[in-house]
Amino acid sequence: MGSGCSSLSYSSSTFIVTASSISSPSSSSSSLKLNPRSFLSHSPRNLSTQLRNQAPLRCGRSLEMESQKPMFDVEKFDDEFVQKLVYDALVWSSLHGLVVGDKTYQKSGKVPGVGMMHAPIALLPTPFPEIYWKQACEVAPIFNELVDRVSLDGKFIQDSLSRTKKADIFTSRLLDIHSKMLESNKTEVFLLYLLVHVNLHSLVTMSWFSFIHFACLCSQDIRLGLHRSDYMLDEETKSLLQIEMNTISSSFSGLGRLVSELHQSLLRSYGDHLGLCSERVPRNASTSQFADAMAKAWLEYNNPRAVVMVVVQPEERNMYDQHWQSSVLREKHNIVTIRKTLAEVENEGRVQEDGTLIVGGQAVAVVYFRSGYSPTDYPSESEWNARLLIEQSSAVKCPSIAYHLTGTKKIQQELAKPGVLERFLDNKEDIAKLRKCFAGLWSLDDPEIIKKAIEKPELFVMKPQREGGGNNIYGDDVKENLLRLQKEGEEENAAYTLMQRIFPKVSNMFLVREGVYHKDQAISELGIYGAYLRNKERVIINEQSGYLMRTKVSSSNEGGVAAGFAVLDSIYLN
Amino acid sequence: MGSGCSSLSYSSSTFIVTASSISSPSSSSSSLKLNPRSFLSHSPRNLSTQLRNQAPLRCGRSLEMESQKPMFDVEKFDDEFVQKLVYDALVWSSLHGLVVGDKTYQKSGKVPGVGMMHAPIALLPTPFPEIYWKQACEVAPIFNELVDRVSLDGKFIQDSLSRTKKADIFTSRLLDIHSKMLESNKTEVFLLYLLVHVNLHSLVTMSWFSFIHFACLCSQDIRLGLHRSDYMLDEETKSLLQIEMNTISSSFSGLGRLVSELHQSLLRSYGDHLGLCSERVPRNASTSQFADAMAKAWLEYNNPRAVVMVVVQPEERNMYDQHWQSSVLREKHNIVTIRKTLAEVENEGRVQEDGTLIVGGQAVAVVYFRSGYSPTDYPSESEWNARLLIEQSSAVKCPSIAYHLTGTKKIQQELAKPGVLERFLDNKEDIAKLRKCFAGLWSLDDPEIIKKAIEKPELFVMKPQREGGGNNIYGDDVKENLLRLQKEGEEENAAYTLMQRIFPKVSNMFLVREGVYHKDQAISELGIYGAYLRNKERVIINEQSGYLMRTKVSSSNEGGVAAGFAVLDSIYLN
Repeated sequence: MGSGCSSLSYSSSTFIVTASSISSPSSSSSSLKLNPRSFLSHSPRNLSTQLRNQAPLRCGRSLEMESQKPMFDVEKFDDEFVQKLVYDALVWSSLHGLVVGDKTYQKSGKVPGVGMMHAPIALLPTPFPEIYWKQACEVAPIFNELVDRVSLDGKFIQDSLSRTKKADIFTSRLLDIHSKMLESNKTEVFLLYLLVHVNLHSLVTMSWFSFIHFACLCSQDIRLGLHRSDYMLDEETKSLLQIEMNTISSSFSGLGRLVSELHQSLLRSYGDHLGLCSERVPRNASTSQFADAMAKAWLEYNNPRAVVMVVVQPEERNMYDQHWQSSVLREKHNIVTIRKTLAEVENEGRVQEDGTLIVGGQAVAVVYFRSGYSPTDYPSESEWNARLLIEQSSAVKCPSIAYHLTGTKKIQQELAKPGVLERFLDNKEDIAKLRKCFAGLWSLDDPEIIKKAIEKPELFVMKPQREGGGNNIYGDDVKENLLRLQKEGEEENAAYTLMQRIFPKVSNMFLVREGVYHKDQAISELGIYGAYLRNKERVIINEQSGYLMRTKVSSSNEGGVAAGFAVLDSIYLN
Repeated sequence: MGSGCSSLSYSSSTFIVTASSISSPSSSSSSLKLNPRSFLSHSPRNLSTQLRNQAPLRCGRSLEMESQKPMFDVEKFDDEFVQKLVYDALVWSSLHGLVVGDKTYQKSGKVPGVGMMHAPIALLPTPFPEIYWKQACEVAPIFNELVDRVSLDGKFIQDSLSRTKKADIFTSRLLDIHSKMLESNKTEVFLLYLLVHVNLHSLVTMSWFSFIHFACLCSQDIRLGLHRSDYMLDEETKSLLQIEMNTISSSFSGLGRLVSELHQSLLRSYGDHLGLCSERVPRNASTSQFADAMAKAWLEYNNPRAVVMVVVQPEERNMYDQHWQSSVLREKHNIVTIRKTLAEVENEGRVQEDGTLIVGGQAVAVVYFRSGYSPTDYPSESEWNARLLIEQSSAVKCPSIAYHLTGTKKIQQELAKPGVLERFLDNKEDIAKLRKCFAGLWSLDDPEIIKKAIEKPELFVMKPQREGGGNNIYGDDVKENLLRLQKEGEEENAAYTLMQRIFPKVSNMFLVREGVYHKDQAISELGIYGAYLRNKERVIINEQSGYLMRTKVSSSNEGGVAAGFAVLDSIYLN
């Protein structure tokens, strides 16, 4: 799998796992007075009794479940039982398409059907408190709406990212495309003004060329967002904190559903023995909800001969995740999907006078980016040309350049500042709900925060502004880097963001990859998918669209995080 | 995949492909006066017009379809279109579990979920005349019944195979187990006599030990057959001829269904372009019908804690075909499946006094053999001990030793002799229907046939008596071998059977394996699955249970058949 959003590695989550009890960082945006009962806590003694009795738990939440008692303790499982579960999980994955390309097989990223392997998975769903699950689901449509509102404010995006632009060439190129679109959209604004504020009859007086241009720009009014908002539960503040908002290439909506179904299936067979009920793994329709949203966008575009184009990386071992979406589009909606790299789009693509994007001779209704989110996706000018070409067409872009930029960490940081959410949302309750999820996020311009971070670097993470994940700075390195930057001057500051360090619960879990299981210390991150579709003023879809848990091996070492492998997971509500 | 029944190679089909027009061999059992219209015939000129018009054929059989016109001609497809179909077929296979272990990946025969590859497949279903399809379906329950009746005649089996026993050590060992069972079943016969001919009250007077023994033997009365009868269409005689009857380890009932669904899916997308209708690919419920039959046998056994045991080879790259059955048993019927090699059964197995087979501490209700059909499955005495142990238990054997032996070529040959079917079946129409399907089959004791075969060896195939496929003798080698045997004397004769050579239609087809398609000359063999379940006199299931087409590359060379690879296929009724 590639890096960034399609990767199983946490693209921009920032956490370190220690057993130390560092006091919670106090941040107005993230300190919540939530029910302090400890989730995921393990109390082996209680469990052993429970397992010995092998009494199945009923699906209703018992008083016992409300308490801090664990549901199961991996220490108590004998190897034979685990092997049986693992075998069944591997078989289920193979039969049901929960697969990825095997990196040891040369063609596995290019040709489907060869060099396949089960996806890396957690053997059992990870316990997750229902209250936080509901909270995460509830804010999904509000985040969808926020992204849409922010994306409409071109000036806010350009201003917020103006300093990042200087430090990061990738964001800079994206902003250039965004600027070009702002320029060309001035006509659109004028025409829309005519339409809305004068009267419909103005259209009659338009020249033919103006009408074509207007029709093209109207298609731009179809706005499709397929997002994934990622959260961790912070043990220190007992709160659900947003790690990032993915507005481009939100991966694993295809395989995520399957992991939930795998866990449900295993619990139907072994639930009695484990004291778990399959119905506590929430239904997950991520694949069809995303595909349905694309199908509805395709319908709005209203060209029955047009296709959905998935923009892909030249090699993609996570292709089956993407194929699941195309499969639903084909089987359920009778919509044809084509797959093109950005280089191919530049070669084979053109925009007709009426705005229609033609690639390989086929009209494209919806462009679904599963590439283009990372600097490595643009190795030459060809790819940038393709991105601009797509943006200038009337095809529904998922995401548009504005949606894409709205998902940057810098915008996330801006939105966390006092008073900013109020610029985009009216409903005070909604604003409060979003703010609850914000972890502390600061630019390096704030001398107060810099001072604090140099004093207590263990409470912060330094994140490079560039997208694509990795290279987060922890512990003493935070201090050293801040001191270096203070000497070097302001220019470099914009390349980094400071974030409140989150302390997720560490648990022993069974993780399965390459046919083998590992018992490891692991931490989890919950992703909530959200789909949003709007045609001009008409909001057609705004919903939470399934979920994905990702669980990652976490062996903490002196002040740093030893990167372990990550697996796909689901949740068990408790 | 192993050899024999689980292999994609034709285990005992005997055919050679030439363009020569050798006159049809006249055999009373196979020369039929069927409609002589040629099936699968191609007439490119007519097709090109049809393709150019791109007019979809309606699903009803048009007059045009009745004629000799082809439905599609692979020569007319451009590479880009075929590549698109292949890509979709590979994706579909990967997402829907139409997979096998990749032989280049070391662990792929042992660990599920690693080293997977799409199954080798025909890109499009193979045209098959509906009249022969109906004929093959119609005889399935009659063949099921025949196998059951023959299996009950221990003397017939022993007598028919008495000479084979001397020539083939494998059949000899099977017969030994069969003899042992005949001995122990004398008690059963007596008790059944009491039950049926005296009255039920006799039971009351039985001793406790007799009752236990009786109960055990009654369980033996649950007889489960999961067969596959293989046919080829002979171009010379215009008839459907049976190649063999598999009564053990009838493979691909799991993947066969999937190939039909794959082809249906492709035709839903590309049918208009191809002029084909997805509904002409017959529905194929092979997986669930076999699993349902096992579930019903499990129910009849009536021990809710007992499992279904699949007897497997130590390495099995065709494991997913088998897992599909277990998956249905688990998900639909809540029945647990265990997988054991014969060596493991010997290690972990025992039979309780009441006849219950215990393996690894678990009572076994149904034993489903996916191993044990080939001499290589018995590398030591351990495996033979295990086979006997299973046979002596009260578990439902699929197949029992008697069913297994009934599927040998020698029995097939005996049944083809005049007057023999009448010993087992009463209904004259049924007998006529079966006889229609018999190709000429002769032992080497018949001097008339030997003379004919030496004169015209191109009309015969010499098949070794041993099970497991391969090593068939064709052309001049038939003549040479017959002359050699005439010198060496009668003893060796029993090791071979002479069979009428079948001349199947050769067509150009697209075959896909290892992610690549090949356009090749190929021939096809239709397998019809049959399920039979009886508890004493009560027949619970007797039905046709889906189908499997296998298509094999066939590059004919001088008098021999160059073994090409085989693929899974479905049929398109015309």
